[in-house]
Amino acid sequence: MGVIDEAQLREIAVGATVLGAGGGGDPYIGYLMAREAIRRHGPVHLVELEELPEAGLVLPVAMMGAPTVLVEKIPSGREVERVVRSIEAYLNRPVVALMSAEAGGINSMIPLFAAAQLRLPLLDADGMGRAFPEIPMTSMHLSGISATPMALVDEKGNALLLETIDNGWTERLSRTATIAMGGSSIIALYPMTVADARRAVIRGTLAKAAAIGRAILRPPAGTSPLDALLAVAGGRVLFRGKVVDVLRRTEGGFARGTATLEGHGTDRGSVLRLEFQNEHLVAIRDGVPTAMVPDLIAVLDAETLTPIPTEGLAYGQRVTVLGLPADPIWRTPAGLETVGPAAFGYPFDYVPIEEGDEDGVSPRD
Amino acid sequence: MGVIDEAQLREIAVGATVLGAGGGGDPYIGYLMAREAIRRHGPVHLVELEELPEAGLVLPVAMMGAPTVLVEKIPSGREVERVVRSIEAYLNRPVVALMSAEAGGINSMIPLFAAAQLRLPLLDADGMGRAFPEIPMTSMHLSGISATPMALVDEKGNALLLETIDNGWTERLSRTATIAMGGSSIIALYPMTVADARRAVIRGTLAKAAAIGRAILRPPAGTSPLDALLAVAGGRVLFRGKVVDVLRRTEGGFARGTATLEGHGTDRGSVLRLEFQNEHLVAIRDGVPTAMVPDLIAVLDAETLTPIPTEGLAYGQRVTVLGLPADPIWRTPAGLETVGPAAFGYPFDYVPIEEGDEDGVSPRD
Repeated sequence: MGVIDEAQLREIAVGATVLGAGGGGDPYIGYLMAREAIRRHGPVHLVELEELPEAGLVLPVAMMGAPTVLVEKIPSGREVERVVRSIEAYLNRPVVALMSAEAGGINSMIPLFAAAQLRLPLLDADGMGRAFPEIPMTSMHLSGISATPMALVDEKGNALLLETIDNGWTERLSRTATIAMGGSSIIALYPMTVADARRAVIRGTLAKAAAIGRAILRPPAGTSPLDALLAVAGGRVLFRGKVVDVLRRTEGGFARGTATLEGHGTDRGSVLRLEFQNEHLVAIRDGVPTAMVPDLIAVLDAETLTPIPTEGLAYGQRVTVLGLPADPIWRTPAGLETVGPAAFGYPFDYVPIEEGDEDGVSPRD
Repeated sequence: MGVIDEAQLREIAVGATVLGAGGGGDPYIGYLMAREAIRRHGPVHLVELEELPEAGLVLPVAMMGAPTVLVEKIPSGREVERVVRSIEAYLNRPVVALMSAEAGGINSMIPLFAAAQLRLPLLDADGMGRAFPEIPMTSMHLSGISATPMALVDEKGNALLLETIDNGWTERLSRTATIAMGGSSIIALYPMTVADARRAVIRGTLAKAAAIGRAILRPPAGTSPLDALLAVAGGRVLFRGKVVDVLRRTEGGFARGTATLEGHGTDRGSVLRLEFQNEHLVAIRDGVPTAMVPDLIAVLDAETLTPIPTEGLAYGQRVTVLGLPADPIWRTPAGLETVGPAAFGYPFDYVPIEEGDEDGVSPRD
């Protein structure tokens, strides 16, 4: 892609919300922030790992917290600069490229905003290929890379630097700090050399997000947006219907809840229940799991195909629910141990989205 | 005092437990740690501010958390080194002297242990003249000095560095981190220049602790330990009696509770209730407050005058309860706002221990 301008920014925002699987926060605020930064500082240079020096420092930046809180606490821009400079000072070396920790929602935009603001290149990669709710749920973690030193700041001006013994402690300590700070924070974590990044990141995530966004916004002539999207992202339609109930609570720093959908058209008479923890975790059709983590469950407006984050779900919406395949790294035994159904407390084994059918997959144990 | 050897260490441990006002943790573990460090590295040099260069960095070190937890989590010694080096690295200058944050219990010993271990002088001063439960409750806070940069580590090897917008946020963020770490941590905070320390610390605290300890352990010939103690510390006997009930809970990272005493001798027929949050906050005699923060309430074994921390209070103990005057800084309007009865949620105004009598002081409002 080379350079990200305003048009591509919009495509990435839309595509990343699909990859966010309902989580990662409403990208709109992040989109406006990134657009303003691009207007002021010029377009963002998207780079591949091969363009960077082996010993250079790559640094993912993100927001942490429940998306329901993020919407009300807009970062000013000083925060991303502060976390990046803090890691640079601590490691006593400059960052050669920023990176997305996750592909989803606002966390696809924050790194673009930061890259424009700090005039740093952005790596076309992320650590999830989607959004997940916890810090150890990254490809870097699977590669044995520490999430610390990690920098964390709030919009008031409080700042923390963490060094932990493992990524589970990083999750615990940064989550409690984020909650104490009011529910959201700006973070920089998983600093790594370009050499380490080559074996540890999921590549091409921003290009994929842009392609998904383009499919929705400007499908090829003669192709429907839905067909164009599935051609790019893979996967299948899980359900078409109407939102009839949404239960939501902010708990332990996460937005948790369930949404219930009644089927339309060929799905008439069926009920789909979505369970989420920031992101959608499982889709249960008439009592049977039909799609599950690490595969992506995306809820789109039935008319416009605009992706709807979990915090945007509301009674009466007519939606199309998609199931999209996860990056292959998540389908390995180590990947499934980290982000499979059991990692989120579900009593059934993972069944890839490709193997499920419209009647759902059967629970195993 | 010049140099602190094993004999003086013992005196300071006993005296600091009196000044701990029931809080600051059981000093015995800290005493053993400091004694071992002195045996290995030689005695600790106690210094006055006048002996140090104006621009030199003074750094208080302490344990944070509920004393009931501290007893079960003995620090290894790597922790104090790590917090000190962390602040030195962050501020890019060496520490010229360590200091006690508070005079109480284990937190009188940790700085001695650290000073011996790191072969650094120890300033004869602290930030409270006693023990208090929260970070902003220091003379440095009253002088407008920031508690951050603050370093915090646990015994597992997790470390945090904080930079906050005020000392209230420092308390909140470090307290939640300490709780997440399992209930206790080792901290370095309120780094300041010698010049700032001259207007901001309470001087002579270790000499005073040693004098109190000496009064109890080796009173002058012909003088009782109790008379010797009151001659050094001021104050008066509040109550003599027996512990008949202790209620304790660990809540929000603090050891909170109440102890009920039935009077003996001239106090026969009276009941004293002690309320504590790590430290004793108020002594209520027959329903009337008779001593209160910021003055010190110390519970001593009736026979040996050994001070008993709140976590050591147990049914059946025969005790003498003393009320000792707080440092004058705490009796100013700003001091009382920070640590007076109202700061701990009590509905009565402060009455100095000297103005109360055996029938108690009357509540005002």
